[in-house]
Amino acid sequence: VSGESTPGARARPITIAVDAMGGDHAPGAIVEGAAAAAAAFGIDIILTGRSAQLRPLLATHTPARARNGAPAARRGQVRIVSAEDTLAMDEGALASLRRPRSSAAIACQLVRRGAAQAVVSAGSTGGTVTTARLRLRSLPGVMRPGLAVVLPTRPRPTVLVDAGATADPKPEMLAAFAQLGVAYAQVAHGIPEPRVGLLSIGAEPGKGNRLARRAHELLAGAPQHGNLPLNFVGNVEGGDLLAGKADVIVTDGFTGNVALKTLEGAAAFAAEQMRAALTGTAAARFGALFQRRGLRDLAGRMDAETYGGAALLGLEGTVVIAHGAATAKGITSACRLADGLARSQITEKIRERFGPGRDRHFLRRS
Amino acid sequence: VSGESTPGARARPITIAVDAMGGDHAPGAIVEGAAAAAAAFGIDIILTGRSAQLRPLLATHTPARARNGAPAARRGQVRIVSAEDTLAMDEGALASLRRPRSSAAIACQLVRRGAAQAVVSAGSTGGTVTTARLRLRSLPGVMRPGLAVVLPTRPRPTVLVDAGATADPKPEMLAAFAQLGVAYAQVAHGIPEPRVGLLSIGAEPGKGNRLARRAHELLAGAPQHGNLPLNFVGNVEGGDLLAGKADVIVTDGFTGNVALKTLEGAAAFAAEQMRAALTGTAAARFGALFQRRGLRDLAGRMDAETYGGAALLGLEGTVVIAHGAATAKGITSACRLADGLARSQITEKIRERFGPGRDRHFLRRS
Repeated sequence: VSGESTPGARARPITIAVDAMGGDHAPGAIVEGAAAAAAAFGIDIILTGRSAQLRPLLATHTPARARNGAPAARRGQVRIVSAEDTLAMDEGALASLRRPRSSAAIACQLVRRGAAQAVVSAGSTGGTVTTARLRLRSLPGVMRPGLAVVLPTRPRPTVLVDAGATADPKPEMLAAFAQLGVAYAQVAHGIPEPRVGLLSIGAEPGKGNRLARRAHELLAGAPQHGNLPLNFVGNVEGGDLLAGKADVIVTDGFTGNVALKTLEGAAAFAAEQMRAALTGTAAARFGALFQRRGLRDLAGRMDAETYGGAALLGLEGTVVIAHGAATAKGITSACRLADGLARSQITEKIRERFGPGRDRHFLRRS
Repeated sequence: VSGESTPGARARPITIAVDAMGGDHAPGAIVEGAAAAAAAFGIDIILTGRSAQLRPLLATHTPARARNGAPAARRGQVRIVSAEDTLAMDEGALASLRRPRSSAAIACQLVRRGAAQAVVSAGSTGGTVTTARLRLRSLPGVMRPGLAVVLPTRPRPTVLVDAGATADPKPEMLAAFAQLGVAYAQVAHGIPEPRVGLLSIGAEPGKGNRLARRAHELLAGAPQHGNLPLNFVGNVEGGDLLAGKADVIVTDGFTGNVALKTLEGAAAFAAEQMRAALTGTAAARFGALFQRRGLRDLAGRMDAETYGGAALLGLEGTVVIAHGAATAKGITSACRLADGLARSQITEKIRERFGPGRDRHFLRRS
């Protein structure tokens, strides 16, 4: 079941801990998606959850052949680590305090112990963030973690941070989120000096609420505590989220979450309205036959499942939070994102951005 | 130039003060749009601005015939009241303090003096809100005005308040915004008991930032100060803005403005992506010929210019803030919205919602 054990010629073996019990379609879709990531992309996986449930599910995903085209150089291993407790989707952040043996908590502990390099969970965002904050150390200089999501702008994507981890941040935390987003844009999108924008309600520096106005001053000023300098381009507005004016857009977790869900809702609304317009009459349906390829491409670009999920950054180990409704395909994408971030050493890159002045021993450890 | 002076058989003559100098296309598009509103809908208009500029513009819009189909029962009068100062589009809120003779300030003063019942301006939101707060009294019980915008949900529209008037409100102000939104939904959309939702980042009462959590308690509790009770349906999320789950959605002006502009940006992005998908190939363009009618209907529904603009509520007189880029058509819609709100006595309706306990003399005055 667990695939071949030949480690292959990889400089840095990466293992992803997958919370098999989190998500609307857990554990079935989680096991299927993780097994597919192991088979297609050679990612080593540890599933955390109820062994009695997971073992038979994993057996059904026999590695007969690699999926998604060309087989990987080696097939990844899939193992199970038992976690008998779970965090329900409707449990709030506080529940994670009471559940040190939940599948999400065990996944984080695997990273803390060095048995895995990143976590994937499709559990509730609040519960997963709190669990991760409790079980993984904060990086020095990062007061609170930030949730980074990738928006499908062109020609290159935009990173929005924080998309919901910290609802009431201090202005200094927004400046730290900028550093997290810059590290993400550098390693995930290959942008050497990402442009950083601050989400506000007007282009001028004085526009915004108290938090945004103070964060603007910090972002526009000289970097503090020896942090690396930022390429700050000023305020951006809600209408600029998809305009590609910045490579990283910084905001508090409340506004960021509202904005992200508003984008998703508007995309779904527009697609539905458009579908009605395109197929409302027999003539329109006939016309749509000629557009099949273009519409299929567009649906692929708009599909959240191909993006993998949000990355919780700023902790000693990355946590990729997949959509609660993620199917197996979404979980595979999330595993691939977690693998890529761990492989490109995003945690070390973030540590470097927060200055060599303090906690130098952390730098030496890596 | 100013049309016929026959008053007609109207129970309550309404005059709208239009800031002729505010907006990207001022004063040309403003004068044209206001004159069209007078001709087509019988609305009496006072244009405020530089007489020397406005007089010749107004002369070109001779009331030869009513526009938009059937002529109104009577043609509205269009007059000019001189205001030699203006508020530039890029001037912030503070500038309005220094400009007591701006076209926006004079328009508000006309309402305060009883010469007009509502204001229309396409000037900058910040400047117009500050001017209105300075020149028009607050209604008793309303600490800060809220900006109400109408979202194109179906089967009936949703009112979002505050869309940007008050960036850092107290929780009590959010509860007051709910009353403003309910009055709007009642008079503008004919909904007897509008459902009120609170914009937050999770469905449960404990989800959100500090402001949203406290506002939830106030909205869910018994109405205070003798205010009328609300039909509170709990938290809604960004993805619900267009879902029709509530008739009124309450939020702070920062989050509301970000959400509104995110919606507008996403709609523009989706339309552009869709256009590319529908016309990217010769076959797709051929197909689009069969969908012309459906697409035209959709464009009309999505067109912000047909909605008229945002209504600043909670002051002694309604201010309709049209989009800064509004064309004549957008100004006509804004005048129609202002006329409708004034005619349905929204200010009195709001006053009643804030309880009879205090300032009874205000009630008697109307």
